[in-house]
Amino acid sequence: MPELRKDPIIGRWVIISTERGRRPSEFLPDEIKTRGGFCPLCEGNEDKTPPEVFVIRENGSPPNSPGWTLRVVPNKFPALRVEGELNREGEGLYDKMSGVGAHEVVIETPKHDETLSTLSVEKVISVLLAYRERMVDLARDPRVKHILVFKNHGASAGASLEHSHSQIIALPIVPKRVSEELDGAKAYYEYKERCVFCDIVRQEMGYKDRIIGENSAAIALAPFASRFPFETWILPKDHSAYFHRTNPSQLEHVALLLTDALRRIDVILPASPYNLMLHTDHMDEKDEASYHWHIEIIPKLTKVAGFEWGSGFYINPTPPEEAAKYLREAQL
Amino acid sequence: MPELRKDPIIGRWVIISTERGRRPSEFLPDEIKTRGGFCPLCEGNEDKTPPEVFVIRENGSPPNSPGWTLRVVPNKFPALRVEGELNREGEGLYDKMSGVGAHEVVIETPKHDETLSTLSVEKVISVLLAYRERMVDLARDPRVKHILVFKNHGASAGASLEHSHSQIIALPIVPKRVSEELDGAKAYYEYKERCVFCDIVRQEMGYKDRIIGENSAAIALAPFASRFPFETWILPKDHSAYFHRTNPSQLEHVALLLTDALRRIDVILPASPYNLMLHTDHMDEKDEASYHWHIEIIPKLTKVAGFEWGSGFYINPTPPEEAAKYLREAQL
Repeated sequence: MPELRKDPIIGRWVIISTERGRRPSEFLPDEIKTRGGFCPLCEGNEDKTPPEVFVIRENGSPPNSPGWTLRVVPNKFPALRVEGELNREGEGLYDKMSGVGAHEVVIETPKHDETLSTLSVEKVISVLLAYRERMVDLARDPRVKHILVFKNHGASAGASLEHSHSQIIALPIVPKRVSEELDGAKAYYEYKERCVFCDIVRQEMGYKDRIIGENSAAIALAPFASRFPFETWILPKDHSAYFHRTNPSQLEHVALLLTDALRRIDVILPASPYNLMLHTDHMDEKDEASYHWHIEIIPKLTKVAGFEWGSGFYINPTPPEEAAKYLREAQL
Repeated sequence: MPELRKDPIIGRWVIISTERGRRPSEFLPDEIKTRGGFCPLCEGNEDKTPPEVFVIRENGSPPNSPGWTLRVVPNKFPALRVEGELNREGEGLYDKMSGVGAHEVVIETPKHDETLSTLSVEKVISVLLAYRERMVDLARDPRVKHILVFKNHGASAGASLEHSHSQIIALPIVPKRVSEELDGAKAYYEYKERCVFCDIVRQEMGYKDRIIGENSAAIALAPFASRFPFETWILPKDHSAYFHRTNPSQLEHVALLLTDALRRIDVILPASPYNLMLHTDHMDEKDEASYHWHIEIIPKLTKVAGFEWGSGFYINPTPPEEAAKYLREAQL
């Protein structure tokens, strides 16, 4: 059973995945394990993953067989497990908790050589729809306090399989990075009686230099305090705390802008690895007025080094105004 | 002039190093630039660095010439600059500040093929002494609010030069990661009237399974909530908030344990990259009872990916108890 442990000084939780138990010799150099060319996520290999929990099939083919365009399956090597009680325990001054939660894989396409930036907009809409459906379902478990959707693209971004996929992790606590955002947005709201993200969208639409793209419902921008070169955020223009309440038209507009942003990143930084994270509030109503869901995309071009680890500061060599200009002017 | 910018949601600062201005084509793949085999940090190339601000010379040779065993020089490409006023400014809802501070390089050895783990203990004492001397000097500048010492060893840990060196950055604000520690330790102190780090040292000395090494003045341990496999912390056993007030005997004991820990890491994980950070409180007395300086060493074996970026959680596949056992049993 994996174990959640809390740092007694700053309150950061970690997952000690005791079942994977990696010995020193098992830390291989940076490369995607191709498993001898075999890919468990490709069409035809449905029996190599746990049974699907969500699927889009256009031809009425039976479950866990070819004929799908998108599948969601439990992770075969989950960081957290669905089974078991949520026990909180002390160990002297330390706190720990059983590693209860869920860990799923969204297989975005049956084809090995497609990526989120080469998929049609319709298929990207399906990916967002799968995120939404799984979030709604996972949130029914009362042990779940937060659900994070993320994507690792490329070996340096932490992908262990090449086939295009995202991951969903349901956690028994609200993680630090998310509660910092919820708390920060709430503090701003208490002071200004406005959503800080809405204010950012308004200011950026007036300033224009950090905008990467926009349509009637969503905006893509290079954030003012970008941690990384070419960092890109996508936000709905209208206030909305909950991704899982997005309507079909909003989802379509977000998918259009997400596809566009990823294609621009691909043109400017060919084949560059990136991480994508979806930040949203959950079932509880208390942050509805102050929080605003959004997608963060961070290309992995620079190294996070001792200064960043030690300070929490980031050094970004590319001003977001320049990054946005390159991305806006990319020839698609 | 570099610019400090603050994220309006969570208050994290970033340094936008406008002078380096990296274009998309300048992001090279992961490799240490060897500059055609030429190393500006080697003995004999003193004119390729800015003039030394601290040096250990045993033979009375003139400044900025060969004959030294350790040099500290300003960074030729500093993240922050000593010159200029510390201006705070708004930009709509955003906050920014001029990038005033200092950025120095501690060249730990004149020889290109030595590392901190192959240096004699006497030379490691000199390195810690150089940290202390430069911290005391830099703290005289009233604009300086925090000084971070760190080391990037190996390309994947962010080192851009192979020659063994550490870096010192003096910042005009206390960075987030450090203030979280100061605040967390203070909250614990207010509740318990004890230093949390002292309590950790006591508990670990009783438990033993996470201890990597110890001597009369210092302890090396694998922290309970280790973020990374083989993460190692070194702490003075006696309460001490300020690294810069360490006496010669304490410095020697810490150097002994640091050398020992790095050599064990080298045996267990040959040639693995790592980051090292020195966390200490500064001139101000308000956290003296609650804070406790320490060194954190994080080998870079796993990738920080979307889950970590999105949640602030870490997934660690090697329990610290196992990591400590491997390191304790390493054959030096």
